Amino acid sequence: MSTGYVHQRTPLAQVTQAMVATAMGREPADLIIRNARLVNVNTAQVQVGVDIAVRHGLIALVGNADHIPVAESTRIVDAEGRYVLPGFIDTHDHVESSMVDIRNFAAAILPHGTTTIACDNHEITNVFGVKAVQLFHDAAEGLPLKVLVAMPVCVPSIPGFEDAGATITADDVTTAYEQGWAALQGEQMNFPGLIYGDPGVHAITRASLEAGKVLTGHYASLALDEGLNAFAAAGITGDHEGTTAEGALRRVQLGCYSQMRYGSAWLDMPNLVKAVTENLGLDTRFFALVTDDVTPATVVNQGHLDRVVREAIRQGLSPIQAVQMVTLNAAQLLERSREIGTVAPGRAADLLIVSDLVAMTIDQVYCDGVLVAENGELVIDIAPYDYPAWAVASVHLDPLTAADFAVSVDADTPVNVRAMRVVPGMVHTEEVEIEMTPVDGTLAADPANDLMKAAVFYRHAAETAADGFKPLGSRTVGFVTGLHFDPGAAFASTVSHDCHNLLVVGSDEAAMARAANAVIAMNGGMSVVVGGEVAAELPLPVGGLMALDSAAAVAKRVEAIESGLKAAGCPHDAAEMTMSLLGLIVLETLHLSNRGLVALRPGQPPEFVDLIV
Amino acid sequence: MSTGYVHQRTPLAQVTQAMVATAMGREPADLIIRNARLVNVNTAQVQVGVDIAVRHGLIALVGNADHIPVAESTRIVDAEGRYVLPGFIDTHDHVESSMVDIRNFAAAILPHGTTTIACDNHEITNVFGVKAVQLFHDAAEGLPLKVLVAMPVCVPSIPGFEDAGATITADDVTTAYEQGWAALQGEQMNFPGLIYGDPGVHAITRASLEAGKVLTGHYASLALDEGLNAFAAAGITGDHEGTTAEGALRRVQLGCYSQMRYGSAWLDMPNLVKAVTENLGLDTRFFALVTDDVTPATVVNQGHLDRVVREAIRQGLSPIQAVQMVTLNAAQLLERSREIGTVAPGRAADLLIVSDLVAMTIDQVYCDGVLVAENGELVIDIAPYDYPAWAVASVHLDPLTAADFAVSVDADTPVNVRAMRVVPGMVHTEEVEIEMTPVDGTLAADPANDLMKAAVFYRHAAETAADGFKPLGSRTVGFVTGLHFDPGAAFASTVSHDCHNLLVVGSDEAAMARAANAVIAMNGGMSVVVGGEVAAELPLPVGGLMALDSAAAVAKRVEAIESGLKAAGCPHDAAEMTMSLLGLIVLETLHLSNRGLVALRPGQPPEFVDLIV
Repeated sequence: MSTGYVHQRTPLAQVTQAMVATAMGREPADLIIRNARLVNVNTAQVQVGVDIAVRHGLIALVGNADHIPVAESTRIVDAEGRYVLPGFIDTHDHVESSMVDIRNFAAAILPHGTTTIACDNHEITNVFGVKAVQLFHDAAEGLPLKVLVAMPVCVPSIPGFEDAGATITADDVTTAYEQGWAALQGEQMNFPGLIYGDPGVHAITRASLEAGKVLTGHYASLALDEGLNAFAAAGITGDHEGTTAEGALRRVQLGCYSQMRYGSAWLDMPNLVKAVTENLGLDTRFFALVTDDVTPATVVNQGHLDRVVREAIRQGLSPIQAVQMVTLNAAQLLERSREIGTVAPGRAADLLIVSDLVAMTIDQVYCDGVLVAENGELVIDIAPYDYPAWAVASVHLDPLTAADFAVSVDADTPVNVRAMRVVPGMVHTEEVEIEMTPVDGTLAADPANDLMKAAVFYRHAAETAADGFKPLGSRTVGFVTGLHFDPGAAFASTVSHDCHNLLVVGSDEAAMARAANAVIAMNGGMSVVVGGEVAAELPLPVGGLMALDSAAAVAKRVEAIESGLKAAGCPHDAAEMTMSLLGLIVLETLHLSNRGLVALRPGQPPEFVDLIV
Repeated sequence: MSTGYVHQRTPLAQVTQAMVATAMGREPADLIIRNARLVNVNTAQVQVGVDIAVRHGLIALVGNADHIPVAESTRIVDAEGRYVLPGFIDTHDHVESSMVDIRNFAAAILPHGTTTIACDNHEITNVFGVKAVQLFHDAAEGLPLKVLVAMPVCVPSIPGFEDAGATITADDVTTAYEQGWAALQGEQMNFPGLIYGDPGVHAITRASLEAGKVLTGHYASLALDEGLNAFAAAGITGDHEGTTAEGALRRVQLGCYSQMRYGSAWLDMPNLVKAVTENLGLDTRFFALVTDDVTPATVVNQGHLDRVVREAIRQGLSPIQAVQMVTLNAAQLLERSREIGTVAPGRAADLLIVSDLVAMTIDQVYCDGVLVAENGELVIDIAPYDYPAWAVASVHLDPLTAADFAVSVDADTPVNVRAMRVVPGMVHTEEVEIEMTPVDGTLAADPANDLMKAAVFYRHAAETAADGFKPLGSRTVGFVTGLHFDPGAAFASTVSHDCHNLLVVGSDEAAMARAANAVIAMNGGMSVVVGGEVAAELPLPVGGLMALDSAAAVAKRVEAIESGLKAAGCPHDAAEMTMSLLGLIVLETLHLSNRGLVALRPGQPPEFVDLIV
């Protein structure tokens, strides 16, 4: 299928003879980098005048390479005293947040020095189930980026209240490990289920532990004593949800890596690094830096882990500490420090040549000894993956009409409706009651009073849920306030956490149908209708979540969506991200699922509530 | 068979429900240690007022345990502000050097705080081959000590020049991993074979790497550039043969743990720790402390890893750094830090209560939450292992007579014989030529001129070596000087590195036969004959290497052997250890094997040489 660059990787086990022959100078190297200023993450030293010899993509020697013969094919690179670092490792990254498929994602992040990711493909697994794990694994083959798929374990987020395209069970988890698709357990988001003893959550935990995998978590709570202890006592050794310095330190004290997050929207790291900068002499081996979720615009305009390291240094970490947190520490978290994360013999030659360590200016990026990026530009051609038809046709819906958005009532007397109110800059919603007067037995949106309709349509192919519910054809229509759409405006998207059903928001039913049909026609993505016409489209054919274009192209498309939303009257920045959470029923307070309106009030379990109070 | 204490261990995977229930306070703990001063090796902090709750032998909570219910069976321990440390981990330890079997070894070292060992049972594997690996694994079952068998990979040390009881091949290595007998690769001693490309050595390396195991080494060279790089480039990530601070630092810079040795005879650590104490700010995560070889007397009189930590602190390491080197660092070396090496939730409750951190006074030792030792005394009853008959009957020799030690020559004219000269305090020998005058066509020992006979008898059961040689009945008789035995004195031993054939040294043939027959009758061990009579015996029935008595009893027996050797006229301390190396043909310059006299001269390959020059 693909005609681009196909990366080869050789296991050390197969070439130990060649490795020692090169190290001893009996046989030539494939690559020699001379005169480097080595950032030695093993000792936290900078060593000057170091040569690095590479054979079969693996490091054969770090020291003086004068005795190693040079063949015609040997590539010699003079580092001219610049720094050499191990390639960066992101231990927690959702590729889907960057809205491009894994191959375009690799192309985007490699120039920024990230050479390994542990990607938790939670979003697309909500669409396709365990098949998505294999899909990610297969689509990443031949990439110079090392892709370790972190098995998603919370699909759907609250069974019985919503329907994704599949359900992930302990058997799926075991299958994914046994087949080699998944390399570790992704974030256990259902931390209440874990610490309060949900059997399904513990069955999955057992499957991961018995497979010998590293387990990561999502402990989104400020309770740092029994809850966090319980979470760690179940075997979870990495967590990225610490939001305070105390939370970061406490995790590390409990032997759980603090995966300090610095994404596009969630910028916890500056708070968290105070655990290090304000505790002189702290051993920092259990701290890592991760991106979690980054938009294509962030990657294109600011970078990936290079951006995170740069900011961590600005926040007071020493450059070597910051680099350790995306190299050796990350590799030890993943239990792969014999393969990656350090510039040392026997390890993969994932190397960065850096001209400014504080500004983190990456001149060259090598994956397994192959130059893949230079001065911020990819120098290899990454061919597209030939996705199977099912992977790019995940919107199982016929075109909609205005009637699909109708809300009928018994009589034309005024009623109180339960509406979601979005709060700019926050992820949760508020629950409000608004009096509405039906016309001809139906309730319409009321843009003059900032009351829009919002609808979720089941768009996957699953026929029966675990509880016997048949989701095909299911839908819910409700109301949302705070978006300020003008008349004739609508937004539709298949990026709708966590089930990623089709979300449609708008000020009239016809515009909503038009926006929805644009997304259906694209096999997933986003669209904005302004003045009754489609004003912007973002095709996301892979599972309705990811584009087959470059991150730069997608960033432009997202910009067009955001301009469209502004033109539609919505004053908020990145309103498409706010709306993508209207279906996320694990958040407080009122949200929509395909099964109905779900209220999650503080300290109470979720419950279905009626639209009409 | 055994009626003593049988230790149970529960995998975390099976009990995550119980762990979270205890951490959250829904169910009682099995053990609560209150008010500890926690040595937190994760952060290098000491935390005061810490409680530790244990369930199913695993740590459920580290913090405040006031909310955890107490059952009638819950054991409550008030640490009264004393230190709590993780149990110590020895990543390189030859049990055979302590001359007791694994069960008596466990009994001896547990009171000293060692709760996990990676034991490289190289010596007994020379006797029984891969069966010995299973034997060690099986004999350790039910012990509170965690025993990780490190697969011996250099048996015999120089094929074709000597015969052990078996040969270890790459297939044996794979079998031992697949059967679960071995958990990592033991020391690769044949470092020249590795770095110069010996196919058999690389086949074994490949087997270990493909099994995903950690590989340890024995790089006994001061060449720290290409040789050490080559060694590391073959995938070896731990080495205990650094003998200088520079050697230790260089290993760590190359991503290879420096396993700093402090045994009974080899005391490298005080030199090596200078790599840390003289390099302020060095990251010390790649440094570990190991014992390698300790005599029973050292264990009984001075201790095990507690002794090493104590000395490391005396040499200038901070107590926390020193403790990290036998806990977290060691666990990370073994890639087991999710199970052992830190006092943290989800880990084994291997805990030490320590009243003085610098003196390393260990008051209590817990293995998986069970109190096993208190104030230096074992408080459990470790039953003996019921060894199979073959394991305690490894001396396949009929009684010898004086005639077995005869050296015949053609005529009674003076000849020059090639003799070994032992050098007090050194491990090598010198090669000397001595003129002797035969009597009746034979050469006798000449105690008046300090010339003893030395003989090696093949004592194993192997019928054919890899090169077709049939070792049964093979023997070599030569001469040794420097031991100063009186007339009528002899020493015999089955502890004779590396093949552990029967070694006999003496001043006359009758005494030699008597000493040899005492050892044969004991099924292995050591004996000393003084004035023609057996003066001391040390039975070592397990493979001819290890006793079934306590370390204290064996230490007394060794003392008797050493007194006997002094009484026999030998002025050197621990002469039995010096003589145990007369058969170690990997050392320079002249040694005895069952196949003949072997010379190993500087920079030359080994060769057979004639006794008569």
